[in-house]
Amino acid sequence: MAKTVAKIRKSAEQIRAQILKGKKPSMRFPLRSLSNVRYNVKKGFFEMLGKKKERTLTVGTVKTFAQTLRMMSLAKEIIERDDMATKREAYYISKNWGKAGFAEQAESDTIMDDVEAMFRVNREQLKFIPEEKGGDVAGRLLVFDTDSKGRTVKIDCTRFGSGAYSIPTEVENLEFESRAKFILAIETAGMFQRLLKYDYWNKAKCILISMGGVPTRACRRFIRRLCEKLNIPVYAFVDGDPYGYFNIYRTLKAGSGNAAHLNRFFCVPSARFLGVTPQDIVKYKLPTHPLKAVDIKRAKDAIKNDPFVKHHKDWQKAIKLMLDMGVRVEQQAFAKHGLDFVVNKYLPAKLRNPGRFLP
Amino acid sequence: MAKTVAKIRKSAEQIRAQILKGKKPSMRFPLRSLSNVRYNVKKGFFEMLGKKKERTLTVGTVKTFAQTLRMMSLAKEIIERDDMATKREAYYISKNWGKAGFAEQAESDTIMDDVEAMFRVNREQLKFIPEEKGGDVAGRLLVFDTDSKGRTVKIDCTRFGSGAYSIPTEVENLEFESRAKFILAIETAGMFQRLLKYDYWNKAKCILISMGGVPTRACRRFIRRLCEKLNIPVYAFVDGDPYGYFNIYRTLKAGSGNAAHLNRFFCVPSARFLGVTPQDIVKYKLPTHPLKAVDIKRAKDAIKNDPFVKHHKDWQKAIKLMLDMGVRVEQQAFAKHGLDFVVNKYLPAKLRNPGRFLP
Repeated sequence: MAKTVAKIRKSAEQIRAQILKGKKPSMRFPLRSLSNVRYNVKKGFFEMLGKKKERTLTVGTVKTFAQTLRMMSLAKEIIERDDMATKREAYYISKNWGKAGFAEQAESDTIMDDVEAMFRVNREQLKFIPEEKGGDVAGRLLVFDTDSKGRTVKIDCTRFGSGAYSIPTEVENLEFESRAKFILAIETAGMFQRLLKYDYWNKAKCILISMGGVPTRACRRFIRRLCEKLNIPVYAFVDGDPYGYFNIYRTLKAGSGNAAHLNRFFCVPSARFLGVTPQDIVKYKLPTHPLKAVDIKRAKDAIKNDPFVKHHKDWQKAIKLMLDMGVRVEQQAFAKHGLDFVVNKYLPAKLRNPGRFLP
Repeated sequence: MAKTVAKIRKSAEQIRAQILKGKKPSMRFPLRSLSNVRYNVKKGFFEMLGKKKERTLTVGTVKTFAQTLRMMSLAKEIIERDDMATKREAYYISKNWGKAGFAEQAESDTIMDDVEAMFRVNREQLKFIPEEKGGDVAGRLLVFDTDSKGRTVKIDCTRFGSGAYSIPTEVENLEFESRAKFILAIETAGMFQRLLKYDYWNKAKCILISMGGVPTRACRRFIRRLCEKLNIPVYAFVDGDPYGYFNIYRTLKAGSGNAAHLNRFFCVPSARFLGVTPQDIVKYKLPTHPLKAVDIKRAKDAIKNDPFVKHHKDWQKAIKLMLDMGVRVEQQAFAKHGLDFVVNKYLPAKLRNPGRFLP
C-alpha cells in the first residue's frame, strides 16, 4: 500500500513541478482498448501493448484533468486511512468537488479506470472496491482475515453446514491455508448446493467455489490468489454453451479484452476446463436444448476473432462439434441419471484424466 | 416433514380410491392469481381467498394429471431420502418419465407451484429448492446447521472479518441464537460492505443482512424465521425509489400478488421502513437523480392498485412527495457527507425514533 501512495505522490509532484516551471502539465495513460491488446500465450492472458494516450492541461481538458487529480487524491486519502470506497460512493464524494464533481457515475468510473491503468495497479489496491459481491466458498480451506479491531479471524470453510463463506468485495489482504487437492469453480448456485448436499468437497478433498454466472472481479482475484498460494489446480465446471465457454471460462482464465490492464491481476491462467463439453453430451446421453441464434453468433465470432480460441485448436474442435450438433447443455442435466450421478459418476470419471481437460 | 409425506400419501390414496370405484379422479388446487388475493391488514400480508381450480382426469388433461402425480411422488421420495432437488434438476429428472416428461422448465415449475399450493406448504418443505442463493449475513448471530454427516455446526456471524455468511438456499432446518437488538435488511452489497467496514453491527448490536436487490425466497424466509425466533424488529434500508419501496420492501413485508399462496411463509409483516425516504432527501440535502418514466409509472400504479399502499396513508404521502420532487435517491448518496456519515450520523439519528418509520 505504501508503494501505491508513493506512486501517487511522485506523479502529483511531477505535475506540480511542471506547473512551477510555467509548463503545461500532462499525464500519460495506457490506451484501454482491444487495439492495445495481445494474447500472451506464455503468460496465459490478454496483455496490454504500449500504446498511450496523453492528457495535457488545456481549456478543453481542465475538468477531466482536475477530476483525475481529485481521484488520485481520494485514493491516497482512503489508502492512508485504511478505508475504502465503493465505485458509487466515490461518485457521490465528488459531489463536494464543486465544478469538478461528476455528473454521472459512468464518468467517475472512467476516470477511476484511467488512474488504475496509469499506476498499473488494480482498483482494489487504490481501495476502490466494486459493488457486487464475490462468490461463495465451501470445503477444505482456512481463510485468515482481519476484523475491524485489527484482530486476525480464522474462517474454516468446512464449518458452514449447508451455507457457505461469502467472499468479500476486497480480497487483497486475505491469507490462506489448505490441504485441498484442487479448486472446483462452479457456474451455478444450484450445482454448488448439490455438491454441498452430497458432501463432495469432503469426498474429493477439494475447495468448491460458486461463481454465480460470470465471476466478479473479487471472485476471480480470490481464485487467482488462492491457486498461487496453494499451488493446486483450478478446474472450471460450467454449462456447455458459448456463454459458459467464453463469458465465464475464458474470462476466468485469460481475462477480457476491454479491461486488459487488469488481466494480469485477475486471470487464472492455470485454470482448465472440466466440463460440460460437447463430447459429454454424446458420452452421457444428456438432455439438451437447441442453440439459440445468439449462441451460434457468439460461437462463430469466437472462432473468428477470439485470440484465445484462435490459439487453441482443441477449443476450435469443441466449438465446431457443438455447432454441428446444434445443441447446448446445462450442468444440471446430469440429474436425468439420478441426483447423485454428477457426484458419484461424472466428476470422478473426469478427474481420473485431468490431462484430457480442454485448455 | 412426516406431515408433508402424510398429506401426499393421503391425496394419492384418494385418487386411487376414486379409480378403483370406477370414477374419474380429480385434484383441486387454489387459484393462483390476483383475483384470488386480498391484503389481510391484521396478519400483514397478501393472502389467498378460496377460489379453486379442479383438474379431472380426461383425455385432454391426462398428461398434466400424470405429471402432477409424478411431481408429488418425486417430492415424497426426496423428503424420505432427506435429499432435495433444485427446480432445474426436477425438470431434468422428468426426462425419465417417458411421455410425462416436461418439454420446458416453465412447465415443471407450474406443476410444482400447483402441488405447493395444493398442500398449502412451501416448495422448500417439498424439498424443491430455488436456484438462486439467499443473501449475506454478518453480526450478532449464531446459526446452527447440520453438516452432511448429521453433526451440528455452529456458525458465528461475528467471526467473518470482511466476509460474510452466505445463506443457503434451504433454510427450513436452521436454528438461531442471538442477543442482537434488531435486524437491518440492506438492499445493496456496497452498503453492506460499508457497514461491515465501519464495524456497524458491533456498535449498534445488530444483525446485518445484504439482500442484493429483491430478496430471494431463501433470504425472505431466513429473515422471517429469524425475527419470529428472536422476536426483534426488522428494519429495511433500501434505495429511495419505487423499486426499493415496492419491489424490495413491499415484497419483503407483505409478499407479492402472483405467489399469494406463499406469502404466509415468506413475508415479514413486522418489517418497518427505515429509509431512504423522500423526506431524507430534503433533511440531509442528498444528491439525487431524476425519476425515470418507469419510476413514475410504477409509483402511480402503486397508489392506484397496490392494496398495501392503498391501506397505508403514510406511504401514499411519501410517494406523492417523491413524485412532486421528481427525484429518486440511492442509499449510498450519504457518502457525499463523508464515508462515515451513514454509520455515525444517519443510522443513529433514525434509530432514535423507530416509531416514526414508515409502516
